[in-house]
Amino acid sequence: MLENNMKSNILQQRKNFKIKGNSMDKYVIGLDIGGMNMRGALLNRDEERVDELKIPSEADQGIERLVDNLGYFIEKILGGKTIYGVGLGIPGIIDSTKGVLTAAPNIKGVHNYPIRDVLTEKLDRDIKLVIENDANMVGLGEWRKGVGRGVNSMIMMTIGTGLGGGLILDGELWSGAHGMGGEIGHMTINPEGPKCNCGNHGCLETYASAVAIRRMVSEALSDGGVVTSLRDKVRDAGPGEIPELVMEAAHGGDEAASGIWQEVGRALGIAIASLQNLLDVDMVVLGGGVANAWDLFIDTVKKEAGERGFSAPMEKLAIEKSALGDDAGILGAGYLALQK
Amino acid sequence: MLENNMKSNILQQRKNFKIKGNSMDKYVIGLDIGGMNMRGALLNRDEERVDELKIPSEADQGIERLVDNLGYFIEKILGGKTIYGVGLGIPGIIDSTKGVLTAAPNIKGVHNYPIRDVLTEKLDRDIKLVIENDANMVGLGEWRKGVGRGVNSMIMMTIGTGLGGGLILDGELWSGAHGMGGEIGHMTINPEGPKCNCGNHGCLETYASAVAIRRMVSEALSDGGVVTSLRDKVRDAGPGEIPELVMEAAHGGDEAASGIWQEVGRALGIAIASLQNLLDVDMVVLGGGVANAWDLFIDTVKKEAGERGFSAPMEKLAIEKSALGDDAGILGAGYLALQK
Repeated sequence: MLENNMKSNILQQRKNFKIKGNSMDKYVIGLDIGGMNMRGALLNRDEERVDELKIPSEADQGIERLVDNLGYFIEKILGGKTIYGVGLGIPGIIDSTKGVLTAAPNIKGVHNYPIRDVLTEKLDRDIKLVIENDANMVGLGEWRKGVGRGVNSMIMMTIGTGLGGGLILDGELWSGAHGMGGEIGHMTINPEGPKCNCGNHGCLETYASAVAIRRMVSEALSDGGVVTSLRDKVRDAGPGEIPELVMEAAHGGDEAASGIWQEVGRALGIAIASLQNLLDVDMVVLGGGVANAWDLFIDTVKKEAGERGFSAPMEKLAIEKSALGDDAGILGAGYLALQK
Repeated sequence: MLENNMKSNILQQRKNFKIKGNSMDKYVIGLDIGGMNMRGALLNRDEERVDELKIPSEADQGIERLVDNLGYFIEKILGGKTIYGVGLGIPGIIDSTKGVLTAAPNIKGVHNYPIRDVLTEKLDRDIKLVIENDANMVGLGEWRKGVGRGVNSMIMMTIGTGLGGGLILDGELWSGAHGMGGEIGHMTINPEGPKCNCGNHGCLETYASAVAIRRMVSEALSDGGVVTSLRDKVRDAGPGEIPELVMEAAHGGDEAASGIWQEVGRALGIAIASLQNLLDVDMVVLGGGVANAWDLFIDTVKKEAGERGFSAPMEKLAIEKSALGDDAGILGAGYLALQK
């Protein structure tokens, strides 16, 4: 009883002094928002998961519905506990300094949407909300808890439908002066290359992503001279299944399929050499579904990067596969909420 | 007399306790080493120049001779004063964490040369030596005292014989986890582009530098169909004079010369869009001799970058001409010595 009184006094003080978060709050929430689902965990101060939750994000039904779901998620996983903060990874261009979702192709109705303010009002209390691009959170997670543990500086590339990036420089996330950086997938690899969804031509993403692989499969199939098992395999496949099928075909000895993975590897190698000449980090981590084809492209990545980059910084660079998979974004988001 | 005794006691203490530098030391030296000359200044703690010096570097006679000259320069400009530190900008790949000159194409006989240790021994006392790539120092100088004053984050491109880069992120120089980064000139702009001195193909430097302009002039002249005043102008010109001559020709209405500047601008625009998508800074500063052709290429730079980069971070970006010219490297080196 005495303890409860003390607690309510503390909460009262917090309210009066508008303290955002409190060192006595034991938990943070790390949340990874995708087009289909939002997944997250309640973490303690040792960054251990004490609870987990996954619900539909309903991003196709608009940003307001998504924010409603977010509010529900947070209240549900908290169950009345007090927390230090919430870290949110969202796919899109985020102005993280202002908590504004500038653009998000996968969420309906987003243009400069002040998600931090809207969510804070909805939750009706002072909770620190730290919002970043989802790929940045993945990078932080891999650096903090995954394959990048202990390195000074790391570049994360998450290769899925598109290619997301995250930069950890000297142990800190660098998401830009306005929180909109880290877009490794939209570095120009070839100025005359394929048109990208972003409007540019020849972005890394147009060579290394599920979308790129689908294009390369179409090109191979439209060339009547190419003999490939892909012709039958991809006939009834959804776009998301194609990288997996090209992986199977390459493992089965299909040369056209192997050539596609070499093209992916070459583009990644070109980008990694430029990035290492520019940023001189300790490690590049490749993750996301497409990175499961690791053994089909990694030799080409290393050869291409080694031939193009300066030898001294390239010798310092490790290129590694992600260790945490889908959990990286959640752990990174939780860590950032704890750190800020 | 009392004051002198106090001073010598303090100096004695410094020696005993091996304190490197002392808050009572009033001065730093900022030094910019070039292939031909080394230029530097003695700066007070308000970063004002109190003395200047320029002597030949004799880099063509080897690194030992250059270090001898450095020792002479430092003793000469000091004239017995005590200093807090020396900042050195050197053209080459520097492992600034170890004070090692990894590679320096313009200085004879350099391979992993421990310049900080050699110079410290030569000076025979504890002076803090901060060593960085010269273009990094130029970036710091422009950010601290030039056109970039007051911005959070800035990218410097120094376009001379080659193209040097410097990254200021959140008010700090980012030269990499091992001090070898910032090599903007060696980002790949076109994977099938011209062979670069570094061994790669299609580096930014192969499109935007005095070397690149010389190549483009040769290509224009070898095409018999091109009508250009450059044919007569460049006949007896040294390589260093060519950008100036192409500038004059373009100002005089020569279309081939104007086309070269548009090619330079296009390459810079491609690189700037990639850099801004990646790093999201406030300002890109273009300096060095080639940047004097500003009005001949800047429109192309802005158009190309605007079409390729994400609109939200591009709207936050200013592209500016350097304000300090040759002094930027000296002031940046002095500032870094003060800051460390």
